Amino acid sequence: MTEPLQPGATIGILGGGQLGRMLSVAASRLGFRTCIFEPGGDCPASHVAQSHVRAPYEDEEALRRFAASVDVVTYEFENVPTSALDLIESLVPIRPNRKALAVSQDRLTEKAFLSGLGLAVAPYAAVDDEVDLVEAIDEIGTPAILKTRRFGYDGKGQARIAAPQEAQAALADMAGASAILEGFVDFSHEVSVIAARGLGGDVACFDPGENVHKSGILHKTTVPARLTPAQRTDAVLLAAKILNALDYVGVMGVELFVTTTGLVVNEIAPRVHNSGHWTQNGCVIDQFEQHVRAVAGWPLGDGKRHSNVEMLNLIGEDVARIPDFSRDGSVAIHLYGKAEAKPGRKMGHVNRLLGPAA
Amino acid sequence: MTEPLQPGATIGILGGGQLGRMLSVAASRLGFRTCIFEPGGDCPASHVAQSHVRAPYEDEEALRRFAASVDVVTYEFENVPTSALDLIESLVPIRPNRKALAVSQDRLTEKAFLSGLGLAVAPYAAVDDEVDLVEAIDEIGTPAILKTRRFGYDGKGQARIAAPQEAQAALADMAGASAILEGFVDFSHEVSVIAARGLGGDVACFDPGENVHKSGILHKTTVPARLTPAQRTDAVLLAAKILNALDYVGVMGVELFVTTTGLVVNEIAPRVHNSGHWTQNGCVIDQFEQHVRAVAGWPLGDGKRHSNVEMLNLIGEDVARIPDFSRDGSVAIHLYGKAEAKPGRKMGHVNRLLGPAA
Repeated sequence: MTEPLQPGATIGILGGGQLGRMLSVAASRLGFRTCIFEPGGDCPASHVAQSHVRAPYEDEEALRRFAASVDVVTYEFENVPTSALDLIESLVPIRPNRKALAVSQDRLTEKAFLSGLGLAVAPYAAVDDEVDLVEAIDEIGTPAILKTRRFGYDGKGQARIAAPQEAQAALADMAGASAILEGFVDFSHEVSVIAARGLGGDVACFDPGENVHKSGILHKTTVPARLTPAQRTDAVLLAAKILNALDYVGVMGVELFVTTTGLVVNEIAPRVHNSGHWTQNGCVIDQFEQHVRAVAGWPLGDGKRHSNVEMLNLIGEDVARIPDFSRDGSVAIHLYGKAEAKPGRKMGHVNRLLGPAA
Repeated sequence: MTEPLQPGATIGILGGGQLGRMLSVAASRLGFRTCIFEPGGDCPASHVAQSHVRAPYEDEEALRRFAASVDVVTYEFENVPTSALDLIESLVPIRPNRKALAVSQDRLTEKAFLSGLGLAVAPYAAVDDEVDLVEAIDEIGTPAILKTRRFGYDGKGQARIAAPQEAQAALADMAGASAILEGFVDFSHEVSVIAARGLGGDVACFDPGENVHKSGILHKTTVPARLTPAQRTDAVLLAAKILNALDYVGVMGVELFVTTTGLVVNEIAPRVHNSGHWTQNGCVIDQFEQHVRAVAGWPLGDGKRHSNVEMLNLIGEDVARIPDFSRDGSVAIHLYGKAEAKPGRKMGHVNRLLGPAA
């Protein structure tokens, strides 16, 4: 157990996107400074961070400089190159730990880990070649989804297989990468738990939000989600089980399918999560501050909310709706400082307050 | 009437203290960048701003560089040197306007302006020398307070006169500066209205907060304040009158004494105000974002709050209470990133949620 970080300390963040931006702002509220490591220039996080080391993840000298200037390191995305993490870890603590990253970087490892905990997951099988794929389809059936094991996000690196004859085309989409075939889960809706675990092992969860996706990208999260009291309890308990098993420190997003036979874990993300953005306007301590608190060894917030909230992502040209949103006093706007509104690009989000939490 | 600033634009802020820091964070939420002009290094605002021009207010080249890099200029304190404002104003709009600054930079001008609007203020008289002071005490009586006309804040540049024989000592405290004698107002408590006026002339006020001071520095603000419905309406109407008279754009803090015969204006501050910090955790759109919206020509938030709040300032060694506050889930911590906890120094504040607003 380490001492809590004192205000004035610096938190290093790997990745300079919108999650790093909102982590930086939350850190500033607790008196921390932030240093962003990000190869790209003019990145969203750099606008609000104390400093920005702009270098590729292969630049050992820059990584050393970064590590020397910070007191702890965290990350805003799960695909940080292993070699960079090896070097940083030899110099300064990384939170959440490497185990969480290793598990979530590989869909196959993740599924095996979750199954090993006794949690329900979609039927799955490893697919390295055509023979594997035929066997997997035999076992799991169609429709199913073929996904690359690594580096997938927002629906990228995925191919739907509606019938066995589509197998070859789907495999070609993987471009030779190791893949996993996942069977479909018959679910009514998706929810996610934003769970946090502190340095002392304490766990606190925000109430689950209900997610709606469009074209593979999160579109809307509403809190509270449609869940029975028993499902709500299950959701929180299974999230805690995952965090404890990984000796996790920080915030994790746990996506769950709601089915007639119970909750099925879709995936986990070892970081603050898009479906937790509602907490910025629904809670005293939001997911970003919760993550900073965990990583800094501070007590966690209790996850309570004062208001019900609907979070709406602004993807690409959705950002043109800002003038309308700005006229609505119940809507909080959160823009990421990205210059160009490309299709599929997350430009910002809005949180609409729905009234006091019951 | 100018077009609203587009996300991506840069807002220049004169002054790099905690108000500039929280304005920067609010601006980032709307996708704006900020550039801080501040002579001091490592200032609170620079930790979260895109850029920092570090130069004295007399450095014309630096002022020009600053003005050229921003789309609009605002300020976090009212004592910006006139020569700097003259130069900046020739290059880029300053909001709120110069009139508001001129009025609030001089206690005598301010009192005359407020009286001219028909608003009640404390009895006052200008004091340039001993003869003036004797006359003023004759007219106003004792106890009274002698204050420098300019550059006073947080109780500095003030001397209490309990009886006429203390006049000379009080005048010596002014060190030759022009002063104003103010009579005491018999008030039950102090409240403040955080009022905003947009570029189109629309006005929105947050519900008044009730202030408690300690040693001349704000200690606590509680919302809602103890006010009758009629007083609440009066408070908002008189604030709007002040803003309209100044053709004001931005947030203003209006401090009011509550007396048996009505509200008496204590002072006005042409900027975001310490007694409005509660809005960060009580409202969807807080005073900092409200100010940014006004300055950027955006629609204002409606000033509604979702929760009642108690704001507590952390002065000097109060910051040692942070570990305790961090264990309370109903408390939001806001630290300013100042290294040293000197006596009387504002280190941060906390907002405690008191429950849903009625």
